[in-house]
Amino acid sequence: MSGEDAPAQQQNAEEQKKQDAKKGAEEPKAETKADSPPATEPAAPPAAEKAPEEEKAVEEEVEEVFSYRSLVLTGYGGYDKVKLQVKKGKKPELKPGEVLVRVKMCGLNFADLMARQGLYDRLPSPPVTPGMECSGLIEAVGEEVSERKVGDKVLVINRNGLWQEVAVVPATHTFLIPEGMSFEEAAALPVNYLTAYLMLFDFGHLRPNQSVLIHMAAGGVGIAATQLCRTVKEVTVFGTASAAKHEVITEGGVTHAIDYRTKDYVEEIRKISPKGLDIVLDPLGGSDTHKGYNLLKPMGRLISYGAANMLSGQKKNLIAVAKTWYHQFSVHSLSLIQGNRGVCGFHLGYLDSETELIAQAMEVILQLYRQGKIKPRIDSTYHLEQVGDAMRRMQERNNIGKIILTTEPMKEEEKKEEAKKDDKKEEKKKEDKKKDDKKKEDTKKEEKKEEKKKEEKKEEKKDEKKEVEKVEN
Amino acid sequence: MSGEDAPAQQQNAEEQKKQDAKKGAEEPKAETKADSPPATEPAAPPAAEKAPEEEKAVEEEVEEVFSYRSLVLTGYGGYDKVKLQVKKGKKPELKPGEVLVRVKMCGLNFADLMARQGLYDRLPSPPVTPGMECSGLIEAVGEEVSERKVGDKVLVINRNGLWQEVAVVPATHTFLIPEGMSFEEAAALPVNYLTAYLMLFDFGHLRPNQSVLIHMAAGGVGIAATQLCRTVKEVTVFGTASAAKHEVITEGGVTHAIDYRTKDYVEEIRKISPKGLDIVLDPLGGSDTHKGYNLLKPMGRLISYGAANMLSGQKKNLIAVAKTWYHQFSVHSLSLIQGNRGVCGFHLGYLDSETELIAQAMEVILQLYRQGKIKPRIDSTYHLEQVGDAMRRMQERNNIGKIILTTEPMKEEEKKEEAKKDDKKEEKKKEDKKKDDKKKEDTKKEEKKEEKKKEEKKEEKKDEKKEVEKVEN
Repeated sequence: MSGEDAPAQQQNAEEQKKQDAKKGAEEPKAETKADSPPATEPAAPPAAEKAPEEEKAVEEEVEEVFSYRSLVLTGYGGYDKVKLQVKKGKKPELKPGEVLVRVKMCGLNFADLMARQGLYDRLPSPPVTPGMECSGLIEAVGEEVSERKVGDKVLVINRNGLWQEVAVVPATHTFLIPEGMSFEEAAALPVNYLTAYLMLFDFGHLRPNQSVLIHMAAGGVGIAATQLCRTVKEVTVFGTASAAKHEVITEGGVTHAIDYRTKDYVEEIRKISPKGLDIVLDPLGGSDTHKGYNLLKPMGRLISYGAANMLSGQKKNLIAVAKTWYHQFSVHSLSLIQGNRGVCGFHLGYLDSETELIAQAMEVILQLYRQGKIKPRIDSTYHLEQVGDAMRRMQERNNIGKIILTTEPMKEEEKKEEAKKDDKKEEKKKEDKKKDDKKKEDTKKEEKKEEKKKEEKKEEKKDEKKEVEKVEN
Repeated sequence: MSGEDAPAQQQNAEEQKKQDAKKGAEEPKAETKADSPPATEPAAPPAAEKAPEEEKAVEEEVEEVFSYRSLVLTGYGGYDKVKLQVKKGKKPELKPGEVLVRVKMCGLNFADLMARQGLYDRLPSPPVTPGMECSGLIEAVGEEVSERKVGDKVLVINRNGLWQEVAVVPATHTFLIPEGMSFEEAAALPVNYLTAYLMLFDFGHLRPNQSVLIHMAAGGVGIAATQLCRTVKEVTVFGTASAAKHEVITEGGVTHAIDYRTKDYVEEIRKISPKGLDIVLDPLGGSDTHKGYNLLKPMGRLISYGAANMLSGQKKNLIAVAKTWYHQFSVHSLSLIQGNRGVCGFHLGYLDSETELIAQAMEVILQLYRQGKIKPRIDSTYHLEQVGDAMRRMQERNNIGKIILTTEPMKEEEKKEEAKKDDKKEEKKKEDKKKDDKKKEDTKKEEKKEEKKKEEKKEEKKDEKKEVEKVEN
């Protein structure tokens, strides 16, 4: 991910692309059209049909050079798999309804970390440019675009392809930035606030006097959800975060901050709210989904929106993945009936065709911003060159709020400082390896424990089954 | 179940009660306090503690006779298991917060049919008086009751014990009947409208322009749900019912009536609404829950509120029960995430401790009645003596709207007519047996088919699993 990998030639990328297209043909699920031309939109024709055009673009390179820097996921693995490349080609021709955006800031999301490890199936296979949200300026508009004009400040949401200096997207994926909102805030807004909003107010149907559990309350979605809870009267927010973040999240609106590292959050919540909770937002998956479900009061609902528990270490940890899969929550409808409970699943990445739904929600969110009721909290801003550091910060859960990538090039003195850090980076890599090994060991140990528990559970289930049979007869 | 069984002596009932109390001690889950004194409330002390008082009541019988007719479920099985008994004893003493209601009309619900077959665990074990809703007049109020007075017309909701002439319930389980509402309407309202309301507006969060599937659209909940959908702008209602009922349900607000007996409702819905539905209300269970789930559009939710598919014939049909259990819907959270879907379970019977929630919903429902936006549709009214016929009508799905039981005694001429029918009843019994046998055969045949399908499905799943493994690696 560091400077020495860039600039890679567009041609190299094209070759990789073609190889990938072949691979794609063998594996029908893979999508390969993503990172070239400079952005993506879901309705584009498949890669194979595009190939001649692409070749043409390369041929005509001499005539009109259009160059831009782009982050490219080159394969699944650690932080260094996302590389900064310089792409050169013809200025992209816009299809009807499309706009070209000069990107200023990009948002980093949990799904990007999952994607890097090959755990997020909405990102086409590498090489591909990640990035689901950004802010910037409209630089060109295609035919049939009436509601955007050159120079408009916009925020953008897209399936991928936004971690680069220019992006071509459908105009319907862009939203005008309100007066007074910075590009950083605009890039921090879409994914986290749409996710929190649709979970709390669509599935959750949050009303006054209810109670909500927010895991990772200092993360992007966590802070967005907390702020949105505050727009409803007398909502009690339970938020989990490490102790160092408690002051910030409490100031932000969390009623009861719980340090999940030192305390059993289920016990803590039961102490304060013995009847349980109305809404549980669950980004963790695995055994935490079970815990969340059991915390629901009648008419309560759990909304599962991720499997962060799968992430353990910078590379895919098969044990953590298997464990999360193994403990994946499943529920029978009769159990839901007897508990008067609901379980919902949410992921914005699978909603990208619901343009109208997204637009309606976005309108409400921007209105709340204008009213001063919500405000994205920026944790830190990194240059594209530093995307590895940015991802590390998020994965190690050191951030409070949103991590932003800026397309602004690094200044010379910053680069020098970065070079000095390179020695340290080697050390970091070694540390990472140690950490990963340690984690693997830990998870193995835990796995054994879980195995034992599982056996015990099986026995319990057998007993339950017997009881059911008894009742039936 | 006809008149010849009544009046049974209160003493007999008491003896049965005691035997049952013993049985209850052996089976800790069974509750036996239910049908004596004349009604129940969940917070009452356990049966064992009451025994001395009950004995006293029997002793003092001579001093002050308080007699009333009561329907009693005497054991699990066919329609004749619910018998009309005359209970005699001392006028019940009210505990603080309780009221005594002179019952006029009672509502019949699907759960009562399930209960008779031993398929509903919220009804204490027999002998017990069923009945979750009624209307009547307040005849006495206990201490600490300030919001009800003697003579108030009320509708009542309770876990059970309301199919009798007098009922003792907590005052909080009663609601004043609005001006102009008949006792029949009042008895038809609580269970169906609370169920439909909480499903559509709490879990469902129904909004304008959405689409809803209502199974058994001519049933009590079906009609209530249709009327409630009509209170929201531009809601499309798909309603299943046999063809003969289509005119009525269409007039009532169903947009697309589907004859589930001759058409595949999934296909019909897909034709009209290819993207799927926002809300599916599912009272059927088994394979219909799967179908409903697959009909959901993104952000859609299925609300399961019963397992009517378990009911096949008047006695418990083990094959139908096993089949419904076998096909019981279960879902993984990752599947919910990828579909952006929700699954909820609802049953009013498990919500009886949520007094405040029920009261709030009831207030809205009564307000909608006053505004003329909803109006219970009465299918038919039966005397307590005819409860078997009433249950048969419901179970054979011949009703359009609510079936009501009235406590008004049968007139002499009616009794004579009923006696004439008795010969016919013998014939009916034979018919029932034939029907049951036929159904068993049919379900056996279907079971075999399903077995085959299941095997095929297993194979498919294996393939899927392999694919997942492939993706993981």
